[in-house]
Amino acid sequence: MPEATSMFRPLYNILRFIFLRLGSTNGYEEERASLKGKHSSRKEMELLREVYEAISAGAEAFLRAEYSYCAVFVVIFSVIIYMLISWSQDTTIGFLTALSFVLGAITSIASGYIGMRVAVYSNVRTTINAQKPGYMPCFNTAFRAGSVMGFALSGLGILVLYVTLLVFSQYFEQDNWILMMECVSGYGLGGSSIALFGRVGGGIYTKAADVGADLVGKVVHGIPEDDPRNPATIADNVGDNVGDVARMGADLFGSFAESTCAALVIAAQTPDLLAQGWGAVCFPLVVSATGIIVCLLTSFLATNIYPVTSENRIELALRLQLIVTTLLLVPATYVVTNMFIPATFQIDGVSRVLSATQQDVFICVVSGAVGGLIIGLTTEYYTSKEYSPVKELVESCRTGAATNIIYGLSLGYKSVIVPVFILAFIIYVAFSLCDLYGVALAAVGMLGNLATGLTIDAYGPVCDNAGGIAEMAELHKDVRKKTDALDAAGNTAAAVGKGFAIGSAALVSLALYGAFVVRIKVASKIAETNVEILQPLTFAFLLIGSMLPYWFSAMTMKSVGKAAMEMVAEVKDQFERNPELLNPVGTARPDYDRCVAISTKAALREMIAPGALVILAPILTGVFFGVNAVYGLLTGGLLSGVQLAISMSNTGGAWDNCKKYIEANVDPSLGGKGSDIHKAAVVGDTVGDPLKDTSGPSLNILMKLMAIISLVFADFFFAIK
Amino acid sequence: MPEATSMFRPLYNILRFIFLRLGSTNGYEEERASLKGKHSSRKEMELLREVYEAISAGAEAFLRAEYSYCAVFVVIFSVIIYMLISWSQDTTIGFLTALSFVLGAITSIASGYIGMRVAVYSNVRTTINAQKPGYMPCFNTAFRAGSVMGFALSGLGILVLYVTLLVFSQYFEQDNWILMMECVSGYGLGGSSIALFGRVGGGIYTKAADVGADLVGKVVHGIPEDDPRNPATIADNVGDNVGDVARMGADLFGSFAESTCAALVIAAQTPDLLAQGWGAVCFPLVVSATGIIVCLLTSFLATNIYPVTSENRIELALRLQLIVTTLLLVPATYVVTNMFIPATFQIDGVSRVLSATQQDVFICVVSGAVGGLIIGLTTEYYTSKEYSPVKELVESCRTGAATNIIYGLSLGYKSVIVPVFILAFIIYVAFSLCDLYGVALAAVGMLGNLATGLTIDAYGPVCDNAGGIAEMAELHKDVRKKTDALDAAGNTAAAVGKGFAIGSAALVSLALYGAFVVRIKVASKIAETNVEILQPLTFAFLLIGSMLPYWFSAMTMKSVGKAAMEMVAEVKDQFERNPELLNPVGTARPDYDRCVAISTKAALREMIAPGALVILAPILTGVFFGVNAVYGLLTGGLLSGVQLAISMSNTGGAWDNCKKYIEANVDPSLGGKGSDIHKAAVVGDTVGDPLKDTSGPSLNILMKLMAIISLVFADFFFAIK
Repeated sequence: MPEATSMFRPLYNILRFIFLRLGSTNGYEEERASLKGKHSSRKEMELLREVYEAISAGAEAFLRAEYSYCAVFVVIFSVIIYMLISWSQDTTIGFLTALSFVLGAITSIASGYIGMRVAVYSNVRTTINAQKPGYMPCFNTAFRAGSVMGFALSGLGILVLYVTLLVFSQYFEQDNWILMMECVSGYGLGGSSIALFGRVGGGIYTKAADVGADLVGKVVHGIPEDDPRNPATIADNVGDNVGDVARMGADLFGSFAESTCAALVIAAQTPDLLAQGWGAVCFPLVVSATGIIVCLLTSFLATNIYPVTSENRIELALRLQLIVTTLLLVPATYVVTNMFIPATFQIDGVSRVLSATQQDVFICVVSGAVGGLIIGLTTEYYTSKEYSPVKELVESCRTGAATNIIYGLSLGYKSVIVPVFILAFIIYVAFSLCDLYGVALAAVGMLGNLATGLTIDAYGPVCDNAGGIAEMAELHKDVRKKTDALDAAGNTAAAVGKGFAIGSAALVSLALYGAFVVRIKVASKIAETNVEILQPLTFAFLLIGSMLPYWFSAMTMKSVGKAAMEMVAEVKDQFERNPELLNPVGTARPDYDRCVAISTKAALREMIAPGALVILAPILTGVFFGVNAVYGLLTGGLLSGVQLAISMSNTGGAWDNCKKYIEANVDPSLGGKGSDIHKAAVVGDTVGDPLKDTSGPSLNILMKLMAIISLVFADFFFAIK
Repeated sequence: MPEATSMFRPLYNILRFIFLRLGSTNGYEEERASLKGKHSSRKEMELLREVYEAISAGAEAFLRAEYSYCAVFVVIFSVIIYMLISWSQDTTIGFLTALSFVLGAITSIASGYIGMRVAVYSNVRTTINAQKPGYMPCFNTAFRAGSVMGFALSGLGILVLYVTLLVFSQYFEQDNWILMMECVSGYGLGGSSIALFGRVGGGIYTKAADVGADLVGKVVHGIPEDDPRNPATIADNVGDNVGDVARMGADLFGSFAESTCAALVIAAQTPDLLAQGWGAVCFPLVVSATGIIVCLLTSFLATNIYPVTSENRIELALRLQLIVTTLLLVPATYVVTNMFIPATFQIDGVSRVLSATQQDVFICVVSGAVGGLIIGLTTEYYTSKEYSPVKELVESCRTGAATNIIYGLSLGYKSVIVPVFILAFIIYVAFSLCDLYGVALAAVGMLGNLATGLTIDAYGPVCDNAGGIAEMAELHKDVRKKTDALDAAGNTAAAVGKGFAIGSAALVSLALYGAFVVRIKVASKIAETNVEILQPLTFAFLLIGSMLPYWFSAMTMKSVGKAAMEMVAEVKDQFERNPELLNPVGTARPDYDRCVAISTKAALREMIAPGALVILAPILTGVFFGVNAVYGLLTGGLLSGVQLAISMSNTGGAWDNCKKYIEANVDPSLGGKGSDIHKAAVVGDTVGDPLKDTSGPSLNILMKLMAIISLVFADFFFAIK
């Protein structure tokens, strides 16, 4: 397999480069040395160290606790996978599927951990660099931190998957690759399960702390969110690292693993691609690898070629990254398509046989990439303070919190329109040209700029935290102002990233769902497989499936509310026991650890029920009602999940930026921080927190995970009937 | 046709009884005479007359303006129907369909008008009777007002439909009844179109005024919602009459007309039922007529057999109505099923031929009726202050508006679970037993207690208004307290009614959708009709269809916000021009008419876009993309519409009752009216207004209307391909 090793080398080099970059991010000490005596007093530096250590310890502790839960889950679930699949197929398949599952889970855990470490290291570096003149030093620090994570995760994901494929290919003959790919789909399942717990647990953690810290101001007058006297503030900062950074990484890693697995499963069922050999079958991986290289080239644009010299360039720089990556992906895809895909080939589609060309494959991948960009930019339009939707939201705050909420909800609903049209268009084009293989490739294409997306996603919380640290370390107000500007741009960019995440999740779940249908078709040996809407069982489960996102959101939203209220109670209690804390010039420090512990406990406790819902729903449906019911469940979940996820994320993002706009005091008639208009905006922001960071993005995983569970257990569902 | 006239007589008697009851509701003068000098001073009585006249004039003016828009629409759309159907079939069918459409529209307009008149008459009567000792006089007045509307509408609907069928049956041979039923489905379309404009226009009117009046307190300190010095207060009261009463009537009339039409269309395609003759084909009408009689009997329970003697009996009395009606419906259905349905008959289903029995038909109808009750009671559980969901919501107000909103949204999401399981179960059972005929019958069964449902729906706003009038006429505080108790029970009962409305809408749209598929099957002469999910066009439109409810809600929510802000600006302006208005003991009266005009203009302006969306979406999809796309659009709209409608209605209902609970001051630690906790609850209530009264319930009509438009134009869609 000479191709195999030749593909391996550039991957290795990329990873090496990434880890070298990671190695140089030794954070706090280095920067501190470079700044010694320049901008910060000794006392400020001591405070910085204190804060840094508290955040670092809190994040470590939470991840350790969370991962020990995950480990238990992985062990139990891999045994279940082994047993059920061994029963319905054979023990080798069972073992290899379980092994892939464990590998996927471990990779996801590693991705999350790397993300968190990088973020924690870089927060304080960004704060320190924000004291230097200009925006370039701090922007570059935060951006580079983001890219370390982006490249580490995408590289790691592709590497582990590729090695797994290489090793497995020793056990399977070429005409059995379809079985091999099924085993490999366990990798996607592993990645996705951990992502679920990460998204839900991390999401509850971060938002419980965030909402709790926000609300403290309500209960104890004059204690803002990031005030060092606020006991919840360290938990809030820990949350940004474990919730926002680590989780987005795990989620997108899951999407990447799943879309690739879906494409591989379908490719292995296409004789013409099999005949072409390893390269053609592994084409989805080639696209992802190409994407990493393109992202790497583009990343120098923001830091070196066109650096951020002023505030209004920040958002532009981030946006340019996404646009340029996508534009470069088009010719790059063209080249690799020509290299690896046969000129024409037959696809044995889900309900018809069709003939596809190189050109068709190219169009599928590119429609995903370009469509993703348009979805991302739409998300930006609805959540950036530059455009009319958020401006209208700001105006609505003048008549109070209620109109702000009404306008915000309506903004979120409206923001669904364009992305859904784009998704429908991509699905129509890709499905028509290359059947479900096309849909899977469109998903892979949309995740082509994964590394850039992750960079931007990690950048945001790093800046947010840098600001929090600046406030806690009582640095000069200008530092906070600067990190706020970085953060505002990051918020918008994060919304763009969420757009990508949701769009790709929809495509991925459709592709996985398709792979599941094809699997059942193979198992049942019926040539024509129709998934009919007008069947009693299917229609009943269509309704139930489209209800699941609501059930899931109800649980996660309420968990945040509940945990936040526990947090507020603890804070109140601390202030009552130690009134000295309220003294603005006092030196008494609150007990941060208790708040960290509350968030940790709440997150771990509350993530179990929604996790069980997502994992058990398809399994129980498949076991008790059969595959027709599963068809309905998956379709329904996908259809309503997409809409709810997009609207929740955008509503939350818009509220956040609306508040930031008022705080920036650009329009003095709004009164700035502390005014009634600002208070109305804070209500929106607080409501938006769980929407945009807990429930909304978790729905991505709900859609994908239900589909991949069905795929992995397809033969089992069929066998027990 | 001897059966025909014998069925006609009881209907006529029922209607006569109803109109006699209506005739005796001559409102204000009579009650005034009965109370002269007893409880109210001359000045109070003068104020009452003033308020009554202002509300009456405002409501008349709005309905006249709205109906003139509707008239234009009806004329244009009936011409379109005539032309398109004449082109694809023949001019007789075109003419009769257009005629049915006009009849449906006129009946709906008449229903809305009757509802409004009854409500306006009865508001002030209820206020006056609330001055008498005990709860019985005022409860009975409001309840009887509701039942006048309930019986008038359900009687009128069934009468016009039956007469239409009788007349049409002169033009069609028995083996052509299928064509006749298609013409008659225009009746459902007419009813539904007017309901759409009513729901949207009326919904925007009432909530613009309500939110506007609420917000005045925010802008001008110390002017509560119902203060006579609040210029928006009359508009608010007019809104309750035209928005809440008239609209619910039109909506449920639409559901009734459509479910009956769907069942008739399918019945006429079933040779065994046709062979049995008129009675078997008209069985759906028989069920509805039976329902009216059962409701009539039950209505004496609340007013005579088990009257409301204390406050805590109010909610019980309303709930008992629904439960007893449903219980009595079971044996009644059994009797009529045995009378009209053959022992066994063949159904030529949408994708199979199956054999059904009398028993099966009975189960379908009863599953709808009982399922509706369970859905209604679930709604009550989530929105009544008696149970833990609202109690938790009250607690969440302690930490401010943000937690209230988070908890409220999560409550709404959660409230979807049980109703969707019930709906899925009903669909599974009915679909399995009698194919789509079963689903249509389940919808008819769920609407069996239509008259009771309407009674309770109209009761709520009558009480709400009675309270508003009491405040404006500056009556004793106890009067307001009494009407508040009546209103709180009414709110919960209204939520139950909304549950029925949404549940039946889901079944109706599925039945209509099924009738559409069958229609296409007949037109295309292909025996096997499958609606496949995994087709490029269908899946793309599944996504688009499930996006439409969001698009629609975005428009309606924002319209309310916008109109409310115009209202607040006007109020501010009035207070600035005439500061004397602010004097609490002054006699200056604000210019109520300008506020009424603002609401009217906004409602008419803003109802056009969402109306066009709903009507044009299926037509454009059918014309440009064909029937496979329409399948996707309808399924998607139905799936996500149900969820969104239920969650919106329940969230809004719960917030409303949460606020009322705090205002009732049962728990002094909440601080009652004016406290910070109360302010947090008011934010929730204001946000809930458009959710529960504009967007949520309009989604019912979106689902049904898209399906019936597709059904009416089915042949046209097929012909232009």
